Amino acid sequence: MGYRAPVGDIRFALEACAGLWSLKSRFSDIDPDLLEAILDGAGALASETLAPINRSGDQAGVTLKDSIVTAAPGFKQAYIAFRDAGWQGLAADAAYGGQHLPRAVALAVFEMIHSANMSFGLLPMLTLGAIEAIEQHGAPDQKALYLEKLISGEWTGTMNLTEPQAGSDLGALTTKAVPQADGSYAITGQKIFITWGEHDLADNIIHLVLARIEGAPAGSKGISMFIVPKIKGEDGARNAVRCIGLEEKMGIHASPTCTMAYEGATGWLIGEENKGLAAMFTMMNAARLNVGLQGVAVAEAAYQKALAYAQERKQGGALIIQHPDVRRMLTHMRAKIQAGRAICYATAVAADGGDKKREDLLTPLAKAWCTELGVEAASLGVQVHGGMGFVEEGGAAQFYRDARIAPIYEGTNGIQAIDLYGRKLLSDRGETMHALIADAREAGAALKKAGSARLVIAADALEEATTYMLSATRDDALVGAFEYLMLAGDVASGLYLARGIANAQSQAAMTKEIIAEQTALFAYYAEAVLARAPARLSTIQIGLAALRAGVGI
Amino acid sequence: MGYRAPVGDIRFALEACAGLWSLKSRFSDIDPDLLEAILDGAGALASETLAPINRSGDQAGVTLKDSIVTAAPGFKQAYIAFRDAGWQGLAADAAYGGQHLPRAVALAVFEMIHSANMSFGLLPMLTLGAIEAIEQHGAPDQKALYLEKLISGEWTGTMNLTEPQAGSDLGALTTKAVPQADGSYAITGQKIFITWGEHDLADNIIHLVLARIEGAPAGSKGISMFIVPKIKGEDGARNAVRCIGLEEKMGIHASPTCTMAYEGATGWLIGEENKGLAAMFTMMNAARLNVGLQGVAVAEAAYQKALAYAQERKQGGALIIQHPDVRRMLTHMRAKIQAGRAICYATAVAADGGDKKREDLLTPLAKAWCTELGVEAASLGVQVHGGMGFVEEGGAAQFYRDARIAPIYEGTNGIQAIDLYGRKLLSDRGETMHALIADAREAGAALKKAGSARLVIAADALEEATTYMLSATRDDALVGAFEYLMLAGDVASGLYLARGIANAQSQAAMTKEIIAEQTALFAYYAEAVLARAPARLSTIQIGLAALRAGVGI
Repeated sequence: MGYRAPVGDIRFALEACAGLWSLKSRFSDIDPDLLEAILDGAGALASETLAPINRSGDQAGVTLKDSIVTAAPGFKQAYIAFRDAGWQGLAADAAYGGQHLPRAVALAVFEMIHSANMSFGLLPMLTLGAIEAIEQHGAPDQKALYLEKLISGEWTGTMNLTEPQAGSDLGALTTKAVPQADGSYAITGQKIFITWGEHDLADNIIHLVLARIEGAPAGSKGISMFIVPKIKGEDGARNAVRCIGLEEKMGIHASPTCTMAYEGATGWLIGEENKGLAAMFTMMNAARLNVGLQGVAVAEAAYQKALAYAQERKQGGALIIQHPDVRRMLTHMRAKIQAGRAICYATAVAADGGDKKREDLLTPLAKAWCTELGVEAASLGVQVHGGMGFVEEGGAAQFYRDARIAPIYEGTNGIQAIDLYGRKLLSDRGETMHALIADAREAGAALKKAGSARLVIAADALEEATTYMLSATRDDALVGAFEYLMLAGDVASGLYLARGIANAQSQAAMTKEIIAEQTALFAYYAEAVLARAPARLSTIQIGLAALRAGVGI
Repeated sequence: MGYRAPVGDIRFALEACAGLWSLKSRFSDIDPDLLEAILDGAGALASETLAPINRSGDQAGVTLKDSIVTAAPGFKQAYIAFRDAGWQGLAADAAYGGQHLPRAVALAVFEMIHSANMSFGLLPMLTLGAIEAIEQHGAPDQKALYLEKLISGEWTGTMNLTEPQAGSDLGALTTKAVPQADGSYAITGQKIFITWGEHDLADNIIHLVLARIEGAPAGSKGISMFIVPKIKGEDGARNAVRCIGLEEKMGIHASPTCTMAYEGATGWLIGEENKGLAAMFTMMNAARLNVGLQGVAVAEAAYQKALAYAQERKQGGALIIQHPDVRRMLTHMRAKIQAGRAICYATAVAADGGDKKREDLLTPLAKAWCTELGVEAASLGVQVHGGMGFVEEGGAAQFYRDARIAPIYEGTNGIQAIDLYGRKLLSDRGETMHALIADAREAGAALKKAGSARLVIAADALEEATTYMLSATRDDALVGAFEYLMLAGDVASGLYLARGIANAQSQAAMTKEIIAEQTALFAYYAEAVLARAPARLSTIQIGLAALRAGVGI
């Protein structure tokens, strides 16, 4: 059995946990009927079109010849189906053909796409980033030129940050931009790890490129963002940008990871000079949420495959799902997946609702906590399969390979931890975090169901950890930052899960059976995850001095 | 930089933690000079011969044509080097050419081999299993016929258990053995997942095969073990056994995983009729320890690669090892690796010393705890590399793929948890476990170093968990069994690490610097792992009823 969209779990996370309907005043078009139609349509695309080419795409991979990248068989037809149904523009500006629905709704669609085919999902995900960057930072003529075709899916987008020598340190990048007489810039340099940087699925590719204008200040204060289209104008002239290499990766084989050479390519400045990093960050925030969602999505795919295997695979006389340990693994997967969903959809609803502080706080949690979940669940999925999990034919192995990229790209999870500490916690001396902790305590205290006391205790631990993080030296705090992020993720997910159970009572779509099942999942989650959250404190407080023996210095 | 044998850490685990020299009265040949010579020699083989063909073997894989399996380039030469140096027979019976050294010493050699090349290591590891089975269960003429050539490495061995319909449930196997007039049996059936079941590195392959003699009782009580050599006699006649397929796996590509067809092959009963499962278990116990060691070994390889990358990779101006989060990951890896080593070597020393109860108790811990460590550390190794970790060229990805098999084969870790619960805990109502707990408390209380109190608290938690496991219903206990095993592994590793620091004071080879470094590693381990062990209790006690929501039943 292939992937089937878990509409019930998604709707519970979206409507009950994240509170989608609180957005009604801002997004008047969305109603339960439309939501259902969207989820059904996207579910069909995912199951019928994208999932069937997931393994074949893994096997075929992509090819590069004479700067032309050819996608795996079936991907072009799938992209046309995706494009023609209008999925790209769900949350985009109506003035350029978008449907102006909440991003949270678009996120649900992307969850299904990523579950069915993570390699494919990266293409519209990157386009979404380009759309948002141009919506927020583009000049009117740039919007007019690019938005409609990106929103329709006719063109696709990319993000060009990383350079061979610079990795996560964007301040070190050296790609040059030389002003030209016509107001454009000549862009020269090399970018690596460019997802879907070149392909044959769309007529044009709009690259958003970080580069340094001649004479700009050194470091991160001298970086500007440019639009560099693959095809320059209506005459179809090719720009001086090409793919000169593909990475041979462990997973997401059907997604081309390109090395791009810019050889005096024509680019146009977007946003202000030397403010490129800030512009790229707005784009990256959305992308980080989407990558976190990939963690949830690949975990869901792994869960479904493992559940189906356990339900059909006999050992001796009994199905392996009869084994308590197999049930434990499956329950663990589903409970954590639902927790990850709660974080992701709550982040999106915060963004849609204009609660910028909560959105910013939750974004690194969504990215890091959920991508760690992706790896954990994919690994459990392999384990449920036994020997067949290690054999590629079984399909579980692909999820394990694919899932591993998500903790790395769009800012490693270590970078997310630094972001949470520096940009989110220190910046307001813990105010936003304390609001989250208060919400979690309140939700836990109000729920009065099995497990809700665990949430309160975990929130207390997060408070203690927050006090530590705010008072520790920077180095000591950074040693604990990853674990602190994980603890915050535990608490945030617990908060939204608990809130979901409370909210569901008053939501028409939530039947007694649904509420009972989600309450049971929460109870498991509380005992298996929240109960262990306070123990993270010891790791958080370990301090830099404790690490010397591990690195020999 | 390639793999370099971590002789210091291995010796600390072997001599100080596991107490190798307590075996002096049983193994008079071993002394510090010989140990050093062995570790140096094996280290050189690992670094210079096996590590260099690890990635090339991963890429080339193995091929099957006309029932002939050809190993990856370089493997034959490497095997000859291994064989000619006499490594196979280190712990084997001196009467057949072995050196009768402690198994713990042979284990140290195998650790290096597995670190350098896990695919390669499986071949002598399986041969070791065949040697032990024939040593323990073979008739004198069988010993005479097979042992010398297996011990010299001239021939290799395999274990043939799994069948397509039977997975972990050996009672369901159907391979038939029909008695022949000459006292042999005609073996007919199909076996899957047979590691190094066919290859071109040795003149003969000795298969140990589980099968059912005509008329034997159903289930696990009707299974016998047979010796089925690939080449039947001195005339070179080929037996009716052949490889009919190779699995396409996620990792250990250079190790052929064969489907073997027995078509009336000539086999000889080894051990008693219908007692094959018991015989196979003695063989599997050693193999389980060796698989646990693979977890440690692949973790060590991942650690070394990640450390080297962090020390040479600059980002902006600084090496990435300067990042506190990178140091945290590396320290976590090294500390847990040393903990895993302590379990594995302590298991071997218990076996060598005739402490059967402790050996049996530790074996599932070694297998499961250490293979989970292998996956965790390999994943962290990928993470330290950032984007390069996901690119195959970087090499970290291979460890992540290779490591994933170890929690599955030789009895999944779920099976190990059942083994710990049923065969080790229930069988003596916790007596052996309580002895371990008492040792851990004593070692913790005696140490009086940073972290030692954590060990005592973890031991208390294990006692509480043990009480629960002994009183819970079987189903509830089995839900908690995996987590219980993990907790027992935390405590056992803590015990041997703490004991190691205490023992080291009186051992000549252990300098002040070594002791200080290992003490610091233990302190980290106590805060990052042992401090969190008690929190496992909530998961252990979760019970079957809590799992319904996860599996929809």
